[in-house]
Amino acid sequence: MASKTSLSGFPEWLPQERLVELHMLDTLRETFELHGFSSIETRAVETVEQLLRKGEIDKEVYGISRLAEDEEAAAVAKEGKLALHFDLTVPFARYVVDNAGHLNFPFRRYQIQKVWRGERPQEGRAREFTQADIDVVGDGSLPFRYDVELALVMIDALSKLPLPEFKLRVNNRKLAEGFYRGVGLTDAPAVLREIDKLEKIGRDAVAANLVEHVGATAEQADAALQLASIRAEDTSFVDQVRALGVQDDLLKEGLAELGEVIAECVRRAPGRVVADLSIARGLDYYTGTVYETVLVGHEKLGSICSGGRYESLASTGKKTYPGVGLSIGVTRLVSRILSQGLAEASRAVPTAVLVSLTDEDSWSAAQDVATELRSRGIACEVSASAAKFGKQIRYADKRGIPFVWFSSVNDDGAVTHEVKDIRSGEQVAADPRTWTPPTEDLAVRVVNAQ
Amino acid sequence: MASKTSLSGFPEWLPQERLVELHMLDTLRETFELHGFSSIETRAVETVEQLLRKGEIDKEVYGISRLAEDEEAAAVAKEGKLALHFDLTVPFARYVVDNAGHLNFPFRRYQIQKVWRGERPQEGRAREFTQADIDVVGDGSLPFRYDVELALVMIDALSKLPLPEFKLRVNNRKLAEGFYRGVGLTDAPAVLREIDKLEKIGRDAVAANLVEHVGATAEQADAALQLASIRAEDTSFVDQVRALGVQDDLLKEGLAELGEVIAECVRRAPGRVVADLSIARGLDYYTGTVYETVLVGHEKLGSICSGGRYESLASTGKKTYPGVGLSIGVTRLVSRILSQGLAEASRAVPTAVLVSLTDEDSWSAAQDVATELRSRGIACEVSASAAKFGKQIRYADKRGIPFVWFSSVNDDGAVTHEVKDIRSGEQVAADPRTWTPPTEDLAVRVVNAQ
Repeated sequence: MASKTSLSGFPEWLPQERLVELHMLDTLRETFELHGFSSIETRAVETVEQLLRKGEIDKEVYGISRLAEDEEAAAVAKEGKLALHFDLTVPFARYVVDNAGHLNFPFRRYQIQKVWRGERPQEGRAREFTQADIDVVGDGSLPFRYDVELALVMIDALSKLPLPEFKLRVNNRKLAEGFYRGVGLTDAPAVLREIDKLEKIGRDAVAANLVEHVGATAEQADAALQLASIRAEDTSFVDQVRALGVQDDLLKEGLAELGEVIAECVRRAPGRVVADLSIARGLDYYTGTVYETVLVGHEKLGSICSGGRYESLASTGKKTYPGVGLSIGVTRLVSRILSQGLAEASRAVPTAVLVSLTDEDSWSAAQDVATELRSRGIACEVSASAAKFGKQIRYADKRGIPFVWFSSVNDDGAVTHEVKDIRSGEQVAADPRTWTPPTEDLAVRVVNAQ
Repeated sequence: MASKTSLSGFPEWLPQERLVELHMLDTLRETFELHGFSSIETRAVETVEQLLRKGEIDKEVYGISRLAEDEEAAAVAKEGKLALHFDLTVPFARYVVDNAGHLNFPFRRYQIQKVWRGERPQEGRAREFTQADIDVVGDGSLPFRYDVELALVMIDALSKLPLPEFKLRVNNRKLAEGFYRGVGLTDAPAVLREIDKLEKIGRDAVAANLVEHVGATAEQADAALQLASIRAEDTSFVDQVRALGVQDDLLKEGLAELGEVIAECVRRAPGRVVADLSIARGLDYYTGTVYETVLVGHEKLGSICSGGRYESLASTGKKTYPGVGLSIGVTRLVSRILSQGLAEASRAVPTAVLVSLTDEDSWSAAQDVATELRSRGIACEVSASAAKFGKQIRYADKRGIPFVWFSSVNDDGAVTHEVKDIRSGEQVAADPRTWTPPTEDLAVRVVNAQ
């Protein structure tokens, strides 16, 4: 159950929902770091000039300006108009150029931040959302091997999330472009733009468009569509492409690259990868491998993790920085998990133990118990008032705190402690210096509902 | 050494600097959760109307608007003009009202997010910065005890950060207001606005202002200044205030409250707290306890953690939500730590081990080794090409990776593994299923330079 959002397209989570999101962010971070990726963050704003370098996205960009307009005019004159970033790739490219002298290449980074797009909100598309990106960027060149590695890293990361089965769909732009050239279609971007519509408008309409808009013959259109129909969960696609009988060096190179990605993914993560020769995304950007990811049974949600190889992420006068990377749409995933109850937190709050008060004067002694427990990593809070025990227990129960701690002082001044599991009702003697809850109750866990 | 920032007031960190920031954020989060605070995030934007409720801060606020103006006009008409939040308190108040039916009160939350202010940048004041807030909010009422608890939580959190000594300065608005009333000064906010200038303009100028602007007699001004001069690291301030001979019920109440905060902090965290009766912050907001925190030796940096009690964080028609909370200026702290080298990361990257390649065909076998190491929490990466070992070691050295792994296949097909500590040069036989680095090399640590 998602919390009420008072502003469409700007999702907010209740505390127990946020625990699911935190678990996902923690898992991604841990996985990326295990693979040697460094964390960076970039500022939320870029100059409009920087953001619109690739053109035609100005409708989605949120500009920012100080409400006090007199100061604003001077600032704009000095720095240029500023706007919120709409992805993490453009800012990363700028960061690499800004800091190239301080970075070691190939530079491996992950970046988990919010981005903003002024789009019409709908399910799976928010105006403020979190992306989790990994990229490796080289100085001048970057071995192809990273195309394989990044697929494996993302498969590792996605496998650890509380998600249904997913499929990483991979294609290669060299393969497609070489193939089109081999059949005499030289405007590869135009062909791919039409192929990209396959799922939406169907094969016949795409064939007609290829003839009408790209100037293809019926045979050329048919060949392009035959290529796009190839799908395989192993390297058998290589023979299927060869069987189409097209000769081209770029095709050959792309085929070898895609073969390597698929072979290694099949070997290391069987069932997670598909060679899908209809994938046509981000043409102006990508120059080789391209990736998309769908959740099986949730295909209409769109791709949850996409990316590819770009020969020039950034360039200055003399240098280019090629890279390969993928981006997870974290908010899209969290929204789906929460709206369909695919996973949930084992309890609603971090607190494992409520330390109760026997009387109003026992607050400081209760803090001593809490400090002892916290020193051993047990999250706890102290009751704010010495209400009847039943009321203190109900408070814990309502908040989802599993244990309540009781301390009492005997007539001879000795202190005894007991702790109650309020789910089972079991109450046992306990020492604040040694007692620990069962492992599954120590910290909040996020459990897959399936 | 901070990275070059291409936009003034929007700091960005190099990867090794970001490790220091991450360590601080992790430490704060862990501490807040150990004390039973739930994480929430609010959207980055609020309506301008919401942000300007308290008035007079419009110069600092960044409005946002879609660059495509035709769509924008319709959106503004529908939702009102949007702007980036300038703190986390106003959005939190709105969140509490929006979600009151789904929250359990007293609601304990922490919130760590970026905020934006269009201020003139200078050291310690950025235009984009991270705040870490904790607040407890009640439904209708909130026991005073939380004023004590929140001070203790923040002292615990700040004590764990790689910082110089700090002092939490505490005052109480009831105490000040009651005292002023007791000497016949009824416009407490006006008096406090003058007292707030003490450090800047000095005692004589404040006395003159009190007479001139607030209508105080010389005796009243003197009394107010005597109160503001009281400072104590224990509860001795109570007698000092009483010695001034002013009688007022509100004064008495404030004195008792401040006494309780100081007594408990002295008991549980000696040396961390000061009763400072000159603290006058945020008057329109706070209604009881107020907190500020200075780093000893860095007083000019300003307060690094501030807050207080507010009787009405938010209110709807029939309900009010009183609260108490504090906010840490994380970016201000990180900037100071980095610019003065107060702490640094034990290495520049998360990677502990570089798995080297013997030849180009060994990449997949090297991935097997890496997978084995990662399954036991050891961060590693695999060389991208089988350069000479010397070159692979230099790559690790340059990036700050402490260990390099070597695998070789004997003539009889048996694989042997060795791992080299490239700092000492020591190289030993190792099994990927059992070898671990020394504890201090397992993960990046952040070490205090002092």
